[in-house]
Amino acid sequence: MKILVLGAAGMIGRKLIERLLQHGSLRGQAISKIHGFDVVEGAIASTDSVEVTMSAGNISEPTVVDALVEDQPDVIFHLAAIVSGEAEADFEKGYRVNMRGTQNLFDAVIARTGYVPRIVYASSIAVFGAPFPEAIDDDFHLTPLTSYGTQKAIGELLLADYSRKGHFDGIGLRLPTVVVRPGKPNLAASGFFSNIIREPLSGLPAVLPVSEDVMHWMASPRSAVGFFIHAAELDGDVVGPRRNLTMPGLAITVGGMIEALRSVAGSKASDLIEHKTDPTIAGIVANWPRNFSADRAESLGFSSEKSFEAIIHAHLEDELDGKLP
Amino acid sequence: MKILVLGAAGMIGRKLIERLLQHGSLRGQAISKIHGFDVVEGAIASTDSVEVTMSAGNISEPTVVDALVEDQPDVIFHLAAIVSGEAEADFEKGYRVNMRGTQNLFDAVIARTGYVPRIVYASSIAVFGAPFPEAIDDDFHLTPLTSYGTQKAIGELLLADYSRKGHFDGIGLRLPTVVVRPGKPNLAASGFFSNIIREPLSGLPAVLPVSEDVMHWMASPRSAVGFFIHAAELDGDVVGPRRNLTMPGLAITVGGMIEALRSVAGSKASDLIEHKTDPTIAGIVANWPRNFSADRAESLGFSSEKSFEAIIHAHLEDELDGKLP
Repeated sequence: MKILVLGAAGMIGRKLIERLLQHGSLRGQAISKIHGFDVVEGAIASTDSVEVTMSAGNISEPTVVDALVEDQPDVIFHLAAIVSGEAEADFEKGYRVNMRGTQNLFDAVIARTGYVPRIVYASSIAVFGAPFPEAIDDDFHLTPLTSYGTQKAIGELLLADYSRKGHFDGIGLRLPTVVVRPGKPNLAASGFFSNIIREPLSGLPAVLPVSEDVMHWMASPRSAVGFFIHAAELDGDVVGPRRNLTMPGLAITVGGMIEALRSVAGSKASDLIEHKTDPTIAGIVANWPRNFSADRAESLGFSSEKSFEAIIHAHLEDELDGKLP
Repeated sequence: MKILVLGAAGMIGRKLIERLLQHGSLRGQAISKIHGFDVVEGAIASTDSVEVTMSAGNISEPTVVDALVEDQPDVIFHLAAIVSGEAEADFEKGYRVNMRGTQNLFDAVIARTGYVPRIVYASSIAVFGAPFPEAIDDDFHLTPLTSYGTQKAIGELLLADYSRKGHFDGIGLRLPTVVVRPGKPNLAASGFFSNIIREPLSGLPAVLPVSEDVMHWMASPRSAVGFFIHAAELDGDVVGPRRNLTMPGLAITVGGMIEALRSVAGSKASDLIEHKTDPTIAGIVANWPRNFSADRAESLGFSSEKSFEAIIHAHLEDELDGKLP
C-alpha cells in the first residue's frame, strides 16, 4: 500500500500522515510507503515499517504532478489548495492552483492505462452560498459565492464524472470548519472560532469579533483526519454516483462554544475572551452556512463530535497532553 | 451594438441570428454587426442595416477565441458545444471543447481590461442527474450523470464566479429539450420527441421507442430563441448572484404529446406513429428529468408554451408556413 498526500505540510495533511503511521495499514493492507508533497517540504520521519518521503513543488505544473503519480500510489489524498482568502485576492493564482492543479492530478492519473487509485479530495462547505435553508441538506445546490468555493465545486464535478467513467475511484469530502486549530492566531476570517478556545486554554486572551448568536458548522482536526481515513476505506459501489459528501459536524453558536469552554476550563478561561465586534469579519461570516444535515455521510459511517465539550477535549488531548492551564 | 454568436450554424444559433435581424435592435440599441462562428461556416446574408459575417474554427484553440472577441462585441451568445452523445463517447474531446473552449472564451474576455460584455451561455437540464424529486426546483443540486452535463455545470460555475468578480456580465440558461426540431430524423437518444410530431405532420411514419407514460420537459425552438434574447436584455443586478437559470418548459408525457398531435392534425397523423420499444433508448430516457418548477426564470419574465398544442402550432407556423399536410 503506497500513499500520496498532496498538501502534506498543512495542519490536516501532517496529522493525516501521523495517523496513517500509527495505523500502519489502510484498506486492509500494510502501508509500505507514504510520499508527502506541498509547496514547502514537510518533515515527518520514516518508521521501521513505513518509508516516508517528502518533496516540494507546485501542482499547477503538469510535469510535477505527473512525476508524483509515476509509481502509481494506491491511495491519493488531495488536500493541496490555495486557501479561501488568497484565492479571492489573487483570482488567477486561485484558478491556476485549485482548479488546474486538480485537473493536472486527475489527468496524470488518467494518462496511466489500467491505473485506478482511490482519490480522496478535500472539498469544503464553501461550495454553498447564501441564502441558505434552515439546514443545508444533501440535495442543496452548489452556488458558491467565492472563487475558492467555485474551484472546489469544479473539482467535485470532475471527481464525480471521472469516477463514473472508471478513470479513478474518487470521494470528495466537504469539510466543516476545523476547530480547534493548533498554532498561533491567524488573520483568516474564520480564525476566531479557534482563537477563542485555544488561547484561553493556554491562559492567553482572545478577541471575539462577532456576536454570540453566530452559528457555524464545526468538527475537530481529529475528526477531519478520521473523515479522510474512513473515505479511503469505503467501498465506492456503496457510495454510488454522488461522490461528494457533506461531512458531519456540530452546529453551535459562539455563545454555546463559550459556555462549553466555561464548563470544561472554568470562567477564568472564558473570561479571557474580549467581545470586540469587527464589522468586516461579522459581514463575511453572515454569509457563511450555519447548519447542515449530513445524512448521507452519516449513513456511510462518517462521524464527528456531538458536543463542543468533546471538541475541546480532543484539543486538550491532542495538543496539550490532556492538561488544562 | 455588435453581437457574437458561437454555435451559429446550429439550429438554435441560426434561428437566433434570424430573429436578431428581424428585431434590428438589442438592449435598446440598433444592431450594427453580427458575427457567427461555428465548426462549419454558416450562411446568413447581411441586411441593409446589419452586417452579418461568418467564420469557422474550433473554440478549443485559445488564439481562435481571442481573435473572435478582438473587436469587443457587446453581447456574446455562447451556444457552441459538442453534443451529449459525442461528449460521452469521446471523453477527451468533450472536455477540450465544452470545458476548455468555454474557459478560453471567458479568459479571452478577461484579458481585455475594461471590457465587460453580456455573455449568454447555453447550459442544459443535463446538469441534473437522477434520482430526482417530483419536480426539480431552483435549489436542487447539480449531479450530472454525463460528461456533457458535467462540462455544462462547470461552465455555469465559472460564469457565476467571473460575473460576481465583475469580469463580465453572464447569464446561463438551462434549456429544456427543444421540440419540434426541424430537419431529418437523427439518432440522438432524444430525437424521437421531435420525430413523432414532425414526421407525421409531413405525412411520414415515425417510430416511438419508449412507452407513452414517459414524461419530459420541453419548449419550442421559438421559445428557446426567445430565452436567449430575453436573457440578453435582462438587468444583471435584478438576476443577482445566482446567474444560472432553469428555463421554463412544459412537462408532458409522450401520450399527451400524441393526444395533442391528434387534436391538431387528426388521427391520420397520430396513426403514423409506430410503437416499437428500444430498450437502450428507454433505459437512457429513464434517467432523464421529467419535470421542473422554473419559478426564478418565470419571475424574471422568461416564458414558454403552456400546452403541447401551442408547441405544434409554433412548428407549423415556423417550418411549414402554417399548413397541415
